[in-house]
Amino acid sequence: MLPLPPSVDLREVGLRDGLQLEAPVPLATKLTLLDAIAATGVRRVEVTSFVSPDAVPALADAEQLAAELHRWPELRFSALVAGRGGARRAVAAGMADLEYVISASDGHSLANARRTTDEAVGAVADIAALTHGAGGRLEAIIAVAWDCPFDGRTPVERTVEVARRAVELGADELCLGDTIGTTVPGRVVDLLDAVRTAVPGVGVGVHFHDTRGAGLACVLAAAQSGITKIDASVGGLGGCPFAPGASGNIATEEVVYLLEESGVDTGLDLTAALAAATVAERAVGHGLPSTLHRAGGPNRPRGRSRVTR
Amino acid sequence: MLPLPPSVDLREVGLRDGLQLEAPVPLATKLTLLDAIAATGVRRVEVTSFVSPDAVPALADAEQLAAELHRWPELRFSALVAGRGGARRAVAAGMADLEYVISASDGHSLANARRTTDEAVGAVADIAALTHGAGGRLEAIIAVAWDCPFDGRTPVERTVEVARRAVELGADELCLGDTIGTTVPGRVVDLLDAVRTAVPGVGVGVHFHDTRGAGLACVLAAAQSGITKIDASVGGLGGCPFAPGASGNIATEEVVYLLEESGVDTGLDLTAALAAATVAERAVGHGLPSTLHRAGGPNRPRGRSRVTR
Repeated sequence: MLPLPPSVDLREVGLRDGLQLEAPVPLATKLTLLDAIAATGVRRVEVTSFVSPDAVPALADAEQLAAELHRWPELRFSALVAGRGGARRAVAAGMADLEYVISASDGHSLANARRTTDEAVGAVADIAALTHGAGGRLEAIIAVAWDCPFDGRTPVERTVEVARRAVELGADELCLGDTIGTTVPGRVVDLLDAVRTAVPGVGVGVHFHDTRGAGLACVLAAAQSGITKIDASVGGLGGCPFAPGASGNIATEEVVYLLEESGVDTGLDLTAALAAATVAERAVGHGLPSTLHRAGGPNRPRGRSRVTR
Repeated sequence: MLPLPPSVDLREVGLRDGLQLEAPVPLATKLTLLDAIAATGVRRVEVTSFVSPDAVPALADAEQLAAELHRWPELRFSALVAGRGGARRAVAAGMADLEYVISASDGHSLANARRTTDEAVGAVADIAALTHGAGGRLEAIIAVAWDCPFDGRTPVERTVEVARRAVELGADELCLGDTIGTTVPGRVVDLLDAVRTAVPGVGVGVHFHDTRGAGLACVLAAAQSGITKIDASVGGLGGCPFAPGASGNIATEEVVYLLEESGVDTGLDLTAALAAATVAERAVGHGLPSTLHRAGGPNRPRGRSRVTR
């Protein structure tokens, strides 16, 4: 097997990508979940989006949540924005690090944000200026980096070009999103290689969904190719908007289990991560996709065992 | 990424490992499922166990099922046995290829079959003679090859020694089982390397569970290390006996998706594999763990997509 990096830097996205399609949960419940997330040892938390409350009612309390974040000085928070207006709101609310999402396909960009990819890229300079003015860093998240639900496969050169222009216009970091959970490890490595060649020296993270079972294999392949910035969601919270019942985000505790058992330091405590998943499950009031959470954790269970293997 | 083999040879285990802990389903339902499995293009099917009907009532119809297998001449069937008595029953029922399960740890062996690992290994010669007398091949399945729910980690040298002795006593092939779904890719490759060094030239397969999210990553690592014999279960059918609600076997259609999208020929048709999962779901009367099946397949879905990535 190819070697893995000695450590990775996970980002917890359950409060944003996990909750955005759920029925809204009270602010106090989010704070309880944030407490549980902080206890895992994770250092980076994507905490909310500053987007239209009509489009995403679950995150309509972005300003109120931002006002509470001083309670966790040990965490580095970021917020997602979809345009200049959201960026202004986020900065006014005291957020420093912003994530600006750009869809690499026109089909997804038009459906998601009513503008073409080119138009979305064009806003990077203004959003970067706002972010840097607030003393923060701007990450450009490239959605549908591998596949689009409307336009099919995203050509590698298209994603690379979005990455190159976003950096040119002021993005400090990049994150590649497998929005519909269709990619596989070989394609992960191919795109990562192409992007890093185009923007050498720029930090590149990955955001996988486990919609078709290959999410953890993609994490491993990305890590083997040297990627250390990895998004994951507590309990796998975050359904796929297209398929009710389908699992969405890769589960934080499963990433921790896989990597720690493989000798990679994640900085997270697995027991605390499983406890956070239980808190998340209570918050949303339904079961979560994480198989590790459903299995009850990493312990070798005792019990009935006849004629199984 | 390390290269993958051009093709793999999957074995469908849903009828045995998938159904063994379910409430018994009628023989006619099993035959319907077998029809759906045959339509996937898979060539090898683990179809039942010849074990105590009191211990595994779901497979109490082993003889009746064996009598129907002539309907699918294109499939190579195998049956699992736990000892000499089961092997005699299987051969009398017309089965040729047998799988004899040996637990690599005494704790699991005693719980599963009321004998030590040494005692289990001691029966290989008799079972091999029975199998070869019937014109079949004997596969020794090494359960808890990586971890045991009772004894903890299984030392590599212990699994290797079981493998070496099983081959010495007449086993034609081996299969390593991650019975409780705890292993990770690096440990997979380490054990496979050690076993193949000990028994060069002997076919070695793998049987993974996806109980903690790493099952597909283990499949990929095994394939990258040159393993082409891979077990999988339609729809991920087959719960973990220890943890209600936990997913068990890796799902056939997820393995097909991962490998075919990675350029590996599995011989299976993904649409037919998803259809078989739907048949399996109806057969057992409850949802299955496969995330791909829940997502509705590999198609790039169209639909609502606001502010997601």
